[in-house]
Amino acid sequence: VNPYELIRAKRDGRELSAVEVEYLVSGFAGGTIPDYQLAAFLMAVCFRGMSARETTALALAMMNSGKVFDLSDVPGAKIDKHSTGGVGDKVSLLLAPLVAACGVRVPMVSGRGLGHTGGTLDKLEAVPGFRTDLKPAEFRRCLRRLGVAMMGQTGELAPADKKMYALRDVTATVESIPLIAASIMSKKLAEGIDGLVLDVKTGNGAFMAKPADARCLARTMIGIGKGMGKRVTVLITRMDQPLGNAVGNAVEVVETVAALRGECPEDLRAVALALGQEMLRLGLGTTAAEARARLARAWQDGSALDRFRQMVRAQGGDERIVDDLSRLPQAGFRVPVKSRGAGYVRVMDTLRIGLLAVRLGAGRQRLEDRVDPAVGLWFRKKLGDRVGRGDVLAEVLANRREPGRQIAAELADCYTLGRERPARRNVIVERIAGT
Amino acid sequence: VNPYELIRAKRDGRELSAVEVEYLVSGFAGGTIPDYQLAAFLMAVCFRGMSARETTALALAMMNSGKVFDLSDVPGAKIDKHSTGGVGDKVSLLLAPLVAACGVRVPMVSGRGLGHTGGTLDKLEAVPGFRTDLKPAEFRRCLRRLGVAMMGQTGELAPADKKMYALRDVTATVESIPLIAASIMSKKLAEGIDGLVLDVKTGNGAFMAKPADARCLARTMIGIGKGMGKRVTVLITRMDQPLGNAVGNAVEVVETVAALRGECPEDLRAVALALGQEMLRLGLGTTAAEARARLARAWQDGSALDRFRQMVRAQGGDERIVDDLSRLPQAGFRVPVKSRGAGYVRVMDTLRIGLLAVRLGAGRQRLEDRVDPAVGLWFRKKLGDRVGRGDVLAEVLANRREPGRQIAAELADCYTLGRERPARRNVIVERIAGT
Repeated sequence: VNPYELIRAKRDGRELSAVEVEYLVSGFAGGTIPDYQLAAFLMAVCFRGMSARETTALALAMMNSGKVFDLSDVPGAKIDKHSTGGVGDKVSLLLAPLVAACGVRVPMVSGRGLGHTGGTLDKLEAVPGFRTDLKPAEFRRCLRRLGVAMMGQTGELAPADKKMYALRDVTATVESIPLIAASIMSKKLAEGIDGLVLDVKTGNGAFMAKPADARCLARTMIGIGKGMGKRVTVLITRMDQPLGNAVGNAVEVVETVAALRGECPEDLRAVALALGQEMLRLGLGTTAAEARARLARAWQDGSALDRFRQMVRAQGGDERIVDDLSRLPQAGFRVPVKSRGAGYVRVMDTLRIGLLAVRLGAGRQRLEDRVDPAVGLWFRKKLGDRVGRGDVLAEVLANRREPGRQIAAELADCYTLGRERPARRNVIVERIAGT
Repeated sequence: VNPYELIRAKRDGRELSAVEVEYLVSGFAGGTIPDYQLAAFLMAVCFRGMSARETTALALAMMNSGKVFDLSDVPGAKIDKHSTGGVGDKVSLLLAPLVAACGVRVPMVSGRGLGHTGGTLDKLEAVPGFRTDLKPAEFRRCLRRLGVAMMGQTGELAPADKKMYALRDVTATVESIPLIAASIMSKKLAEGIDGLVLDVKTGNGAFMAKPADARCLARTMIGIGKGMGKRVTVLITRMDQPLGNAVGNAVEVVETVAALRGECPEDLRAVALALGQEMLRLGLGTTAAEARARLARAWQDGSALDRFRQMVRAQGGDERIVDDLSRLPQAGFRVPVKSRGAGYVRVMDTLRIGLLAVRLGAGRQRLEDRVDPAVGLWFRKKLGDRVGRGDVLAEVLANRREPGRQIAAELADCYTLGRERPARRNVIVERIAGT
């Protein structure tokens, strides 16, 4: 076996064995297979795809390139949730304490903003003092005490994936379903979890814009989970507008706390409850109805908000933000976005909205950029809403007036209005469960 | 413009502009575009191909990455010939002096053995003292005095192609018609020639085994020539058995000298005359009939052999080999290959024959291997010949007895015999001329 033969095999559409995939991953991670050979291989994968066996072998090899958490000494079922990324997707912030309050352990390793999408770590760090760089022992302690801990990927977790992702990012080999699936699963399964609920986004703000691609990614990830003996459930959810009303970092924490207090936008509530239900089903073996009842109770009686508060404190954050949201970073300017026409909101260009938020400073254009936690967007009108000329569609929360105005002008262009009210569409598109 | 966008454009099947292709080539040659980005690009080209404009831009950019010979001070038409590589293809050794003797200047930059095929430089260097590492001034002097000079590619000629070829060789991106065509043409057109005759091989001993691929490569190279204002004629010739009877280095010089003396296998003569005819047509504007007559005369009256002798002397070789072939390196053992059956030779596995010659030491298995000039194969039976059980099919000329015997045994397996005599097929398959 040599790298050349494996590149050629993939180029010519032959299936690689698990041993061959493992050889490529460990050689690349260890530096004996150079970047240029792996780059050629990855491009061949973009054209040829990977079989279920190859994809599972890839995820497994990347997982085994680093540490695999052993959480067997933490009692109870450990279930994580992962989203493929969207705009305004603050579900993790809300869901992790909510599900923990229902008795499921949630060991969550999250990421930063990527492209036009936000990242859970960036949002958490908008809370003054909040630390996401937990050591494994701290992570385990939080998990045992509170049932929830949220941290970033360390160099110890799936380092081969980290190195491969960096290479894919500069060689235009990101957009490949098996590579995306294996990358996600290698990290998630290194967390030592018992089961995983995946939120695969589809629509004009998702990486998988087409439902068929989202479904294919879902099935690929379920296949990997099966190959590794873990139960995986996928919900395909709509990402054709920001989820909730806030897009940014501190603003999404504001919306999360408000939601846990009871003021929750309908789409955000629907996604959180649907994902939570699957986590309880996997973790506790409850029926769907029972899971929904428990989640509703924990939400209403304040125990979810309380769990959120405890998590903030445990991870070094200023828990006073929960009672006083003005303690979160505040933007200097609020620029209203006014409608230039009238009608019903028929389309929101969610990809562009995400990119505008990044340009505003809520995400990174380059790896070395710093995120401004205070800036963001706040939407007043969403799909299906009736808008009159001059109505406020949204607000831009900026720290510099001029770019804020420019972005507000462009944000207006992200709306397409029409005469007829569009049909209301369920935010949950489909549920796909592993067997 | 950045490399990432160009990789993505090619991956998604979009055509690059000439400026973009030039940017990639010069960035790669200059080291600002890393190997891994070019490797991903090249793999995308393997899947997506290149348009005629892209391919011409690639050849031009690689040519311009180095020195372009200016031979305008050498009087007369300068015409070169290039073969895509075969087994026993000693045509250049014979053809260059023959055509020079007819009054066409032949500035020939040749290569070494590649894969299962032999290389003109390795064959020339079997002549004691023969130097192929001429300086540009020596090359020009030989060309002016004798009308012919044969040398290897220097680092000055199309260095981007050299670097790109090395990368393709380790990333399984060699087998792409536009990349092959641009690589050949970038070097040939850097020679400062007026026209080019290409011998594109097809059959089981050729890189382009299928005639359709050979035809596509031919048209691609003609297109590049046209885009660069050079006249190019292509002959597609059959490579389904060794050309002539000798395969190796000194043995091919022996066959060349014998051929120039008048003892020439029919297939070798046919290919040499057909290519020579095209070179005279391009260089002197003669009719095909006139070209054939001139070539026949120069061959018969000894002026071609004389030109060969002068070239050997001018490039430092021992010219006495022409009259005494025993001065060439001699192998220690001759092992006969005997037929295990009887019938007509219907198939010769030419790829395997070439690989056996390489294993014997006539070519390189690794870049750092040294070629043994003395070893080789000498064929007694070829396609269509009648063979009796125990007849000698070929001889293996080896310097070590054991590998020689092993190779002789395997060589017998390269023959497929049948009851019926196969139809005789013309070695020249097709002529394709640029307009």
